[in-house]
Amino acid sequence: MTHPKTQFVDNPAVKDKAKTKSISLIGSTGSIGRQALEVISAHEERIKVTALAAGKKHLEELAQQVRRYKPDIVAVPDAEAATELRSLLTGIDTKSQAGTGTESQTDIGIQIQPEILTGEQGLIAAATHPEAEIVLTAIVGFAGVKPTYAAIKKGKTIALANKETLVAAGCFIMPLVKEYGAQIIPVDSEHSAIHQCLSGYEISNMRRIWLTGSGGPFRTWNQNQIDNATIHDALQHPNWSMGKKITVDSATLMNKGLEIIEARWLFDFDPRKIKVVIQPQQILHSAVEFNDGSIIGQFGVPDMRLPIHYSLFYPQRVEFEGGPRLDLCKLSSLTFEEPDYTRFPCLKIAQAIANEESTLASVLNAANEVIVEAFLNNRLRFKDIPDHLQRLLDKHKPISNPLLDDILAADQWARQEALSILAAMV
Amino acid sequence: MTHPKTQFVDNPAVKDKAKTKSISLIGSTGSIGRQALEVISAHEERIKVTALAAGKKHLEELAQQVRRYKPDIVAVPDAEAATELRSLLTGIDTKSQAGTGTESQTDIGIQIQPEILTGEQGLIAAATHPEAEIVLTAIVGFAGVKPTYAAIKKGKTIALANKETLVAAGCFIMPLVKEYGAQIIPVDSEHSAIHQCLSGYEISNMRRIWLTGSGGPFRTWNQNQIDNATIHDALQHPNWSMGKKITVDSATLMNKGLEIIEARWLFDFDPRKIKVVIQPQQILHSAVEFNDGSIIGQFGVPDMRLPIHYSLFYPQRVEFEGGPRLDLCKLSSLTFEEPDYTRFPCLKIAQAIANEESTLASVLNAANEVIVEAFLNNRLRFKDIPDHLQRLLDKHKPISNPLLDDILAADQWARQEALSILAAMV
Repeated sequence: MTHPKTQFVDNPAVKDKAKTKSISLIGSTGSIGRQALEVISAHEERIKVTALAAGKKHLEELAQQVRRYKPDIVAVPDAEAATELRSLLTGIDTKSQAGTGTESQTDIGIQIQPEILTGEQGLIAAATHPEAEIVLTAIVGFAGVKPTYAAIKKGKTIALANKETLVAAGCFIMPLVKEYGAQIIPVDSEHSAIHQCLSGYEISNMRRIWLTGSGGPFRTWNQNQIDNATIHDALQHPNWSMGKKITVDSATLMNKGLEIIEARWLFDFDPRKIKVVIQPQQILHSAVEFNDGSIIGQFGVPDMRLPIHYSLFYPQRVEFEGGPRLDLCKLSSLTFEEPDYTRFPCLKIAQAIANEESTLASVLNAANEVIVEAFLNNRLRFKDIPDHLQRLLDKHKPISNPLLDDILAADQWARQEALSILAAMV
Repeated sequence: MTHPKTQFVDNPAVKDKAKTKSISLIGSTGSIGRQALEVISAHEERIKVTALAAGKKHLEELAQQVRRYKPDIVAVPDAEAATELRSLLTGIDTKSQAGTGTESQTDIGIQIQPEILTGEQGLIAAATHPEAEIVLTAIVGFAGVKPTYAAIKKGKTIALANKETLVAAGCFIMPLVKEYGAQIIPVDSEHSAIHQCLSGYEISNMRRIWLTGSGGPFRTWNQNQIDNATIHDALQHPNWSMGKKITVDSATLMNKGLEIIEARWLFDFDPRKIKVVIQPQQILHSAVEFNDGSIIGQFGVPDMRLPIHYSLFYPQRVEFEGGPRLDLCKLSSLTFEEPDYTRFPCLKIAQAIANEESTLASVLNAANEVIVEAFLNNRLRFKDIPDHLQRLLDKHKPISNPLLDDILAADQWARQEALSILAAMV
């Protein structure tokens, strides 16, 4: 490396010359989606939003996003949501005009309206929009696998916030990334950190990945307190503002376990060399240890806009005006701890299967989604989560080197099994 | 960046294919020189020592080094030292055979003996040995400038442990590095850290350098305690085992000030954007903040063999068997503080002139050498160091964009002025 030398003056030409990027945002009204749009807002001259996809919960917000970012297409789950969105966008209540909801957009005098698509097809159309260079997959859960898969087959750059794609289907997905010339830039703060630390280095020289975790809200709780933790307790994440499912995963440390599996696929790295370290302040977002004993780590305030920003501009580093800044002098103290596998058995469960190239990880991922949902609906206790997961994994007959159909089948099986276990509890 | 993917198996072929590097080690019996030889010992199949240069203090050790590493040439300060070294190597006391010290090496039956050279010429011959690809300049002080300069003019890769070269002569040296196609890899742990963090990135995207320092032995001392610090106190460095002069510089924080100047030249970076942060455990060796708010830092145990190892193998990362390892889980706590410019005025003095491209830095460097030496000889108090330095800087008439002769003259002037001040005190 010879560091390119620059003059001390800022170079305004760099900004002007910067190329405009087009992005499809899959999951625009969730926590990551919203923060992605904040980042995009800071760079409106550089980033064009070509497609938005979102669920049904926040259609008004989606309508506002459409007005502001003017995507070509919008994907919503079903026809009902499409109708409602259309009415929100036009200001005309199309639902009340039953049977006449066929007005073309020009009829009502609105010049530019996006194409509104529905269902899985809509999601895939958004993820494969021909103009999109970057597809940010910010849906939570297994639902993210299919649009991500579709985008990979179009050779897109995936800003991956949907870790389930790699957890459940990593052994199937990663060879395709190579085959189709696609690229995955992680958005998870830990994986973004590892990606950043590896810049200019070779994975073959990496001795270890240090995957940091906050330890979650129960880090200092004793076994008895954890056993009796409420939903409210589990949702008190110390540092990050995230969706509910991921927040519960942070409380069980399953999140860290899933991240080990994500990292092994993303960096093609032996999972036995991925070591979890608890860093409660979540300032060090992970680190990479090289074979000469040097460790390179990435720091930043715990703010998802930072890894999102990195993923959208990679391989460039671009000024983030108004972005969060960390003053090392004001850090005071960073602490480090070994994770406790006894109080947090979910981490142990995930680690035990991280090395498998089979449908076990798909089952873990699916079962965890269902079981966490049940916990959030007050149908089981916090302490039941690992027990149920282990029982399901023990029952599963894993398929090695699975294809997508095997993964989908394992996912389905795990969900049904989990639901029957829950049904039997009532 | 697409990370080159590797298989999970270790690849022994990599080791076999590695090319042998030749190194000239300038300052082999000092702290850095000894540790460099430890590193080289761990890689004897890869690194050949072509030249050694050392002072007169440890000629027996130098003789041992010559026997073990079999350099082509050895440089010592003068004829007397050469005679003594020769006698140590042959086992014959040549000094007692006055007037007959002309035996050729073959006369006494020793098959391979190095050429022993003396003085500045010897030093330069060692630094420019035609076979040497890497020249590790590990002499302390201004004496390192000339051999480093000579090596640069031969287009060598300089593993730079002599920071005075850049502090005193950076504005003259750096353009030559470019002109002669040479390369400087820093050995100072902080600059090595910055170099490592910049891998794969562009300096133009760097918003700030976070230069870490231990804070030295007086970090927690109050003003009165510092004013009355003894030589013994000043030599108690909390983390590193280093030479005496640098250890005193660590106590005054002048070391950190000189490092700001070193970093500005090495990375061609605005010194006003180099921020010192006290990190007492010296585990984070410095960090780089990019324009998007992300900070990349380098960690390791405080052991100079790590940056030496990095400098010898760069741009490769090579397994350091038996090298020191850091377990993040066992770190417990890293703390961070703002430096205190009131208790440590030397840092302020250096920072004030860091932005100058003149002989002021040469004067600071030279005067500091003389004044610290006087402190070590009990000729002045610890608290007198900054006062004397400031007085000398105020008296100097700086020359802008100096050539080597201007720098040498400023160095001489500063030493003489410092000595007269000291003489006047007696």
